[in-house]
Amino acid sequence: MRNNYLFTSESVTEGHPDKIADQISDGILDAIIAQDKFSRVACETILTTGIAFVAGEISTKAYVEIPDIIRDVIKDVGYTDASWGFDCNTCSVLTAIHQQSGDIAMGVDSGGAGDQGLMFGYATNETSELMPMPIVLAHRLTRRLAEVRKKNILPWVRPDGKSQVTVEYRNGKPVRIDTIVVSTQHSPDVTNKQIERGIMEKVIKPIMPKGLYDPTSVKHHINPTGRFVVGGPMGDTGLTGRKIIVDTYGGHGSHGGGAFSGKDPTKVDRSASYMARYIAKNLVAAGLADKCEVQLAYAIGVADPVSVLVDTKNTEKVSVDNLDKLVRKHFPMTPRGIIEHLKLRRPIFRKTAAYGHFGRSEPEFTWEKTDKAKVLRKEAGL
Amino acid sequence: MRNNYLFTSESVTEGHPDKIADQISDGILDAIIAQDKFSRVACETILTTGIAFVAGEISTKAYVEIPDIIRDVIKDVGYTDASWGFDCNTCSVLTAIHQQSGDIAMGVDSGGAGDQGLMFGYATNETSELMPMPIVLAHRLTRRLAEVRKKNILPWVRPDGKSQVTVEYRNGKPVRIDTIVVSTQHSPDVTNKQIERGIMEKVIKPIMPKGLYDPTSVKHHINPTGRFVVGGPMGDTGLTGRKIIVDTYGGHGSHGGGAFSGKDPTKVDRSASYMARYIAKNLVAAGLADKCEVQLAYAIGVADPVSVLVDTKNTEKVSVDNLDKLVRKHFPMTPRGIIEHLKLRRPIFRKTAAYGHFGRSEPEFTWEKTDKAKVLRKEAGL
Ligand SMILES: C[S@@+](CC[C@H](N)C(=O)[O-])C[C@H]1O[C@@H](n2cnc3c(N)ncnc32)[C@H](O)[C@@H]1O
Ligand SMILES: C[S@@+](CC[C@H](N)C(=O)[O-])C[C@H]1O[C@@H](n2cnc3c(N)ncnc32)[C@H](O)[C@@H]1O
Repeated sequence: MRNNYLFTSESVTEGHPDKIADQISDGILDAIIAQDKFSRVACETILTTGIAFVAGEISTKAYVEIPDIIRDVIKDVGYTDASWGFDCNTCSVLTAIHQQSGDIAMGVDSGGAGDQGLMFGYATNETSELMPMPIVLAHRLTRRLAEVRKKNILPWVRPDGKSQVTVEYRNGKPVRIDTIVVSTQHSPDVTNKQIERGIMEKVIKPIMPKGLYDPTSVKHHINPTGRFVVGGPMGDTGLTGRKIIVDTYGGHGSHGGGAFSGKDPTKVDRSASYMARYIAKNLVAAGLADKCEVQLAYAIGVADPVSVLVDTKNTEKVSVDNLDKLVRKHFPMTPRGIIEHLKLRRPIFRKTAAYGHFGRSEPEFTWEKTDKAKVLRKEAGL
Repeated sequence: MRNNYLFTSESVTEGHPDKIADQISDGILDAIIAQDKFSRVACETILTTGIAFVAGEISTKAYVEIPDIIRDVIKDVGYTDASWGFDCNTCSVLTAIHQQSGDIAMGVDSGGAGDQGLMFGYATNETSELMPMPIVLAHRLTRRLAEVRKKNILPWVRPDGKSQVTVEYRNGKPVRIDTIVVSTQHSPDVTNKQIERGIMEKVIKPIMPKGLYDPTSVKHHINPTGRFVVGGPMGDTGLTGRKIIVDTYGGHGSHGGGAFSGKDPTKVDRSASYMARYIAKNLVAAGLADKCEVQLAYAIGVADPVSVLVDTKNTEKVSVDNLDKLVRKHFPMTPRGIIEHLKLRRPIFRKTAAYGHFGRSEPEFTWEKTDKAKVLRKEAGL
């Protein structure tokens, strides 16, 4: 990697149509595994003007009223009024759900991975969350957008919104915010001047870190289209699994392509990505590397990964062979081992479905714990 | 990056449900821009048992019969018989399409980007296509799976299928295939032995490169679940934009998260990703670097990128400043400039929607041309 460069990451609010779809899929997943933790769930959502359509493969002993869950999520997100573009009470709800294919179930029942695929986990010591700075700042902005709306600090803010932050790196470290883009859906009765001032004073300035943010030199693009009244599923069709870079590391490091939301933990797309983050984060927390990326890959129906790659981008403090050995010794990598170690058979997924699956401090985010750092450090001889 | 490691990439056939969704979205896009090349199209598809549902935002002067296009794509892909799980003639087709939001159109009409976002392009000289080896091999397998089906070489092969290839790198170069995973949907009247032999002899062996593939040492997982009769949208719900790593570089390099299929070229998710590949490929073709990754980022409604990053992963042959200057001089980066340079206002997208958008030699893939290599080399003083 270069030493000096600009890097850009983005985030979206919980009212962004793709993110509503993710929250619906994970809301349904949570409701089902709350009743039957061994359920198999693959639940996909598409949202457009006036319609929420949910399809997928679900095998469970649970009974849940899916339309109610869908309406609840849309209500929590804030689309409660047709004049805002979408109304949780009157939108049409369609479902087309069938059981998991018996052919797939066969491979999973025996403890094998629920699909083939590649998954990555990443960590870097450039922030206290051990996440890349640009995505941390982008999420901070979208969270704040939702906050000023819900607390009525800016009463004209509506649920859909996006942020994007360009950070300047020098010698591989973030030193300065270069550009901030914020777009928020708004009521029709507010001027562009009011929007710009409100977003600057109530959203951006209070939360951008002093050391990186100089309001006079940062380039700001606030609602650059000039109008954003039509929003949510009316402005843009939303689908589950279409914000996978917002969900992860904002473009730092690689991605295997698998989405998370709506998938029970026998799906390695989700569980192995969580484990890969847990491994990478613990290695960095142990001080064994400044950055770390872990790739895991699986064959469907097979329990052990077909490949494991630990890459520190040349920042390791002990030999790479040593790291490989520590990883193989301390971290389970079969679907069953991962599910047990990270306690994934619990209804904890809906809250992952907005503002990122990683870098979070809520106790349910077991994959964020650095409880292996001490033993790793000791065994590495540091 | 480490010097010695295993890296895994995957591909899927044109009969994979997510890929059928991509082809439907791009089939509709092509039909529309064939009639009106200035159309705005954002077209999303979801497929499950018996249903194809298309939603999105389309503003156009064209008239196309969307259900016919949907049925045509499903037919071409091979789902022509209910006993295979999906039938192009009798499946239900639902559409929910409305115009592009006037608020967005405003920003795009003036030449601005159709959305914010980050996009990456990548190239490496490890293959003649200037693509990473694992994804090249994975696509070769899925293409061959479709071929043995269509040419009736293996009459029991059905449209849905996946491949995955793990490649061993030494000193940063691919030296050996370590593991191959192939799963193909099949008719119920074939034994696992026949499947294994057929896939080995007619799919894998004829097309894996002699220098990398030693059949005795490679680990093969062929239909590891043991049964894959239920396939296509019946086995797994398919959505547009859910194979974005298969579409690009197989996990080598970064991804910005935006999908391609169904999007007209005013959407930078697509057009700027194509330009980023074109830049990276031309720099590598010129011999200015062994590997190259380009990140572009945009603000909605704004024409110029908010950031441009050229990263050679320390393989540059001339100074990085020099590369930056050459890139800014020779490559247009506004939506309009990209569309013109790469001639993107043409109905060329459906064929991009299976087997990768990059590393292709068909003439329509203008972003794969290395027509800038000579002048870049000269101006770099090489
Ligand atoms: C620009 S839309 C994607 C393109 C869209 N499907 C189309 O047909 O043009 C992507 C996201 O941008 C945001 N957005 C929608 N309308 C906008 C506007 N008028 N100005 C800025 N951002 C907007 C929403 O968060 C939306 O989900
Ligand atoms: C395993 S499915 C994803 C999980 C699925 N949604 C579920 O509910 O279990 C992903 C892909 O694997 C392939 N597939 C489907 N059935 C399979 C089987 N029985 N054996 C191997 N691969 C299969 C198809 O290409 C399918 O699109």
